[in-house]
Amino acid sequence: MGCFGDITVTFSANSEEQIKLINQYIDHSLTRFQGTVSLRVAPLIEAMRYSLEGGGKRLRPLLVMASADYLGIPTSHVLPVAAAVEYIHTYSLIHDDLPAIDDDDTRRGKPSSHKAFGEAIAILAGDALLTEAFGQMMVLIEEGYFQPSHVLGAIKLLVHHAGVAGMVGGQLLDVNTDHSNFTLPEIEFIHIHKTGALILASVLLPTKLIPVEEAKVRNLRKFGESFGLAFQISDDLLDIEASIRYSRGPRKKPKPTYTRLMSPQEAKEKLNRLIDTAISSVKGEGERGQALIEIAEFVRTRKK
Amino acid sequence: MGCFGDITVTFSANSEEQIKLINQYIDHSLTRFQGTVSLRVAPLIEAMRYSLEGGGKRLRPLLVMASADYLGIPTSHVLPVAAAVEYIHTYSLIHDDLPAIDDDDTRRGKPSSHKAFGEAIAILAGDALLTEAFGQMMVLIEEGYFQPSHVLGAIKLLVHHAGVAGMVGGQLLDVNTDHSNFTLPEIEFIHIHKTGALILASVLLPTKLIPVEEAKVRNLRKFGESFGLAFQISDDLLDIEASIRYSRGPRKKPKPTYTRLMSPQEAKEKLNRLIDTAISSVKGEGERGQALIEIAEFVRTRKK
Repeated sequence: MGCFGDITVTFSANSEEQIKLINQYIDHSLTRFQGTVSLRVAPLIEAMRYSLEGGGKRLRPLLVMASADYLGIPTSHVLPVAAAVEYIHTYSLIHDDLPAIDDDDTRRGKPSSHKAFGEAIAILAGDALLTEAFGQMMVLIEEGYFQPSHVLGAIKLLVHHAGVAGMVGGQLLDVNTDHSNFTLPEIEFIHIHKTGALILASVLLPTKLIPVEEAKVRNLRKFGESFGLAFQISDDLLDIEASIRYSRGPRKKPKPTYTRLMSPQEAKEKLNRLIDTAISSVKGEGERGQALIEIAEFVRTRKK
Repeated sequence: MGCFGDITVTFSANSEEQIKLINQYIDHSLTRFQGTVSLRVAPLIEAMRYSLEGGGKRLRPLLVMASADYLGIPTSHVLPVAAAVEYIHTYSLIHDDLPAIDDDDTRRGKPSSHKAFGEAIAILAGDALLTEAFGQMMVLIEEGYFQPSHVLGAIKLLVHHAGVAGMVGGQLLDVNTDHSNFTLPEIEFIHIHKTGALILASVLLPTKLIPVEEAKVRNLRKFGESFGLAFQISDDLLDIEASIRYSRGPRKKPKPTYTRLMSPQEAKEKLNRLIDTAISSVKGEGERGQALIEIAEFVRTRKK
């Protein structure tokens, strides 16, 4: 998108600048899109926008941008990739919330997509977001920032992490696991696929866009794997705190969580170890690793 | 897929050879896939296979192969593209059959996916097929038959025709249209998007894979557009014949059909005109257009 220029935004602790940038880009992409299709499909774009602009943390886009920063790629060049992973994350939440899967009526304090638009449109909005995620990857070509063979490498990585070998496979495992009785290896297997795969993809996607030394790819992979599990543990810990603080009732369907297998103290220690591993793997590049380190530190101490 | 060699199969009237080839390829792709992922996701691959191997006519793969033939591209080189459009067609049927959309308990005489596997797995199998359709497009790169920039052009075309501007947009229109009261422009708008877009994509995808003269692209577009509408009309006519012959009860949800707006005779005449247009647009290339012409003639007279 030409209007985002050739900037590289310095990563700040609260990453507000980056979040603003990705939000602007997503808004812009939807508006531009709306201009190219029939008005009759406006309800579909409205449902896509409703969930995309539902107040997410934009963690995955931030990881794409931070990883690009680590590799010296300008932030503006990877905005379509950041949008693509957010499209895929958002579609997975919409389908996950459906009555047949998690049956969640709310998402981030708002009615979930099927509650707001009905189940049929929610299913289609998810399908549309998944398809158009690949459309976002095509924007990389229109802009001409990267070689076609590199863009194809990135698409291949995205398919691998979003599909059967990754996120959708993880969803299947979650659906098929007996949630009243599971082991630590089982829960890690689910998380590594269901949430870890797309987080890892966000970190690795920029490595496909330019020639990158093998050592840096290894560092980023280590960061992504450790960070992905740490993020899930922090999510589980927040769930416990919320249920104590707000006396929140049980979910309609129980989730497999770390905190059902270990004490909050043990979970907190595991979280810290993983964050330490993530940070040490991208240290030693000076300023270049700073954005990734700040995201990792945010997850160590996050309150929401 | 090396094992499919460098063959170009001559199109035969019943196209059994081509159907066998695409079925072998799809089976092979699923089996190869199963070997690369955890056994725990086997139920997901089983659900994908169940619907992919549900006895479809393979119309879209046949169109990809016939269009490739028209352009002089060997059949074996476009098998991944043929599989990709069949993956996308199959995912759309699985999601379409869900209780929240068409609520169809059967598909091609077998229980629909959600009846066989439950709604959660059906939703995920659809998501998996859509994602892995793009994985199939990546096989084109592994094989090295086409230039990266050409493969990207094909992916872009596929996204456009499968997404909001095409098939998913058409599904939305179908869901949002008052089926007790619709006009001819409305029904054509739905069909052009819901079924026509992926049929047109099947015909046009091979034009993206090699340099092609503009005139041939125009011919194929004309063929795809006319054929797509003709196919829908033939479907509606078959529905009427089936309901007369087998006294089939009404569907759970009424469909918008041509035959609710015109007499069977008028629909038949419209079908013939469209098939004539399709055929005349790819005549004049001798043997090269023969496969497309035979598919068009099949739809003119088909009984199932």
